[in-house]
Amino acid sequence: MKESLYKYILGIADNSLILGQRLGELCGHGPSLETDIACTNMSLDLFGQVRSYYQYAAKIADDERTEDDIAMLRKEREYVNVLLVEQPNIDFAYTMARQFLFDVYHSLFLQELQKSKDLTLSAIANKSIKEVSYHLRFSSDWMRRLGDGTKISHQKMQDAIDGLWTYTDELFHQTKADKEMVEAGVGVDVTKLKETYYNNVTEILEEATLKTPESKWFQKGGKEGIHTEHLGYLLSDLQYMQRTYPKMEW
Amino acid sequence: MKESLYKYILGIADNSLILGQRLGELCGHGPSLETDIACTNMSLDLFGQVRSYYQYAAKIADDERTEDDIAMLRKEREYVNVLLVEQPNIDFAYTMARQFLFDVYHSLFLQELQKSKDLTLSAIANKSIKEVSYHLRFSSDWMRRLGDGTKISHQKMQDAIDGLWTYTDELFHQTKADKEMVEAGVGVDVTKLKETYYNNVTEILEEATLKTPESKWFQKGGKEGIHTEHLGYLLSDLQYMQRTYPKMEW
Repeated sequence: MKESLYKYILGIADNSLILGQRLGELCGHGPSLETDIACTNMSLDLFGQVRSYYQYAAKIADDERTEDDIAMLRKEREYVNVLLVEQPNIDFAYTMARQFLFDVYHSLFLQELQKSKDLTLSAIANKSIKEVSYHLRFSSDWMRRLGDGTKISHQKMQDAIDGLWTYTDELFHQTKADKEMVEAGVGVDVTKLKETYYNNVTEILEEATLKTPESKWFQKGGKEGIHTEHLGYLLSDLQYMQRTYPKMEW
Repeated sequence: MKESLYKYILGIADNSLILGQRLGELCGHGPSLETDIACTNMSLDLFGQVRSYYQYAAKIADDERTEDDIAMLRKEREYVNVLLVEQPNIDFAYTMARQFLFDVYHSLFLQELQKSKDLTLSAIANKSIKEVSYHLRFSSDWMRRLGDGTKISHQKMQDAIDGLWTYTDELFHQTKADKEMVEAGVGVDVTKLKETYYNNVTEILEEATLKTPESKWFQKGGKEGIHTEHLGYLLSDLQYMQRTYPKMEW
């Protein structure tokens, strides 16, 4: 039970950590000052949530490891984020499409996690959901602006959605730890979110004059620690300080 | 003397290390199989040279450090490569222009280093120069093919040369250690290579129907350990294995 809860927390936290790192890469590189700051703020929101999760995970692990160790000193295969969030910032359309496809899920997920029997998780969900509602509004707006914008912005956004679609199904996969936590009334049964997720996504895509991809061929592996080639490079950056200056503190 | 020689060796080796790493990033990503393999081979040539230099540096340092420690466990400011070689693989034109601008220098430099009073350095130069002659032929060919190719390839190559030109002058800067080694008959007086360098570069650029940039404003800093923003990311990748698995061996 303790081990499953620990794994379950990482399954939630790693998504936010890796997405937060991806957004953080854009700090100072956004297409406009406002967008740059918005993306960096979303990154900070995610890192804030991540701290709460890893602090809790460290408490449960109850060994020498701190939140920093758990966040930054695992090997690649020990990260269990979904493949979607590790995809690179190919362009702004990709960045927003990735954000949107995750935000719709994240928002639905946290609504349910609020009902968890685990009071710490339910409290983190309760605190995080306000932030994530804002993320979803922001990314949905950009879906509409770019999808229903110029010919080029439409095409770029359609390419991004088509490219990232293959990573959406994994959001609804369940690991062994997930299933145990659902049974214990602690975890969210993500399989029950799937229909609403695709309905909500399709609704916004239609408003954005974008086509919902029809492909039923999906990638998976992240939740089991099997990642795309992009994660290793991301971790090299993310872990550099902790690996180079072990036990560093600000 | 011993300290200056150590620094002098790093000044040579770091250029090849960082350029080798940049070329290595392209392994599996070249525009054609032949080019991919050629770039990867040049990367391996450079790493081979680098090993000889760092092995020698480790012998001179005569402390606990191995060639791997010197190559991979320094902090960013301790790397003294020129800024040119750390510039990113923006596109294939940039990659080849960077290679060409370095190869012309590298070839002239090694010709002189062969005459060094230091027999180890002269032997490494003697062995390396054959490889570097091939690199220079390869990159010069691509300058001609892309410069004197299509409208687009010409424009991309001109952009690359214009973008990288600002990093060429630093090749002929001398550090304190450089000057001491020149005086001792060990080092190459790079200031004497400058005229030939720019003549040789201009000759190929003309054959390639490219304009030699006229800007006299140049960047510097690498030789003193002050780098562009790109080196940190490169080092994060380069150092990952050694930092993550300290004292690892194959």
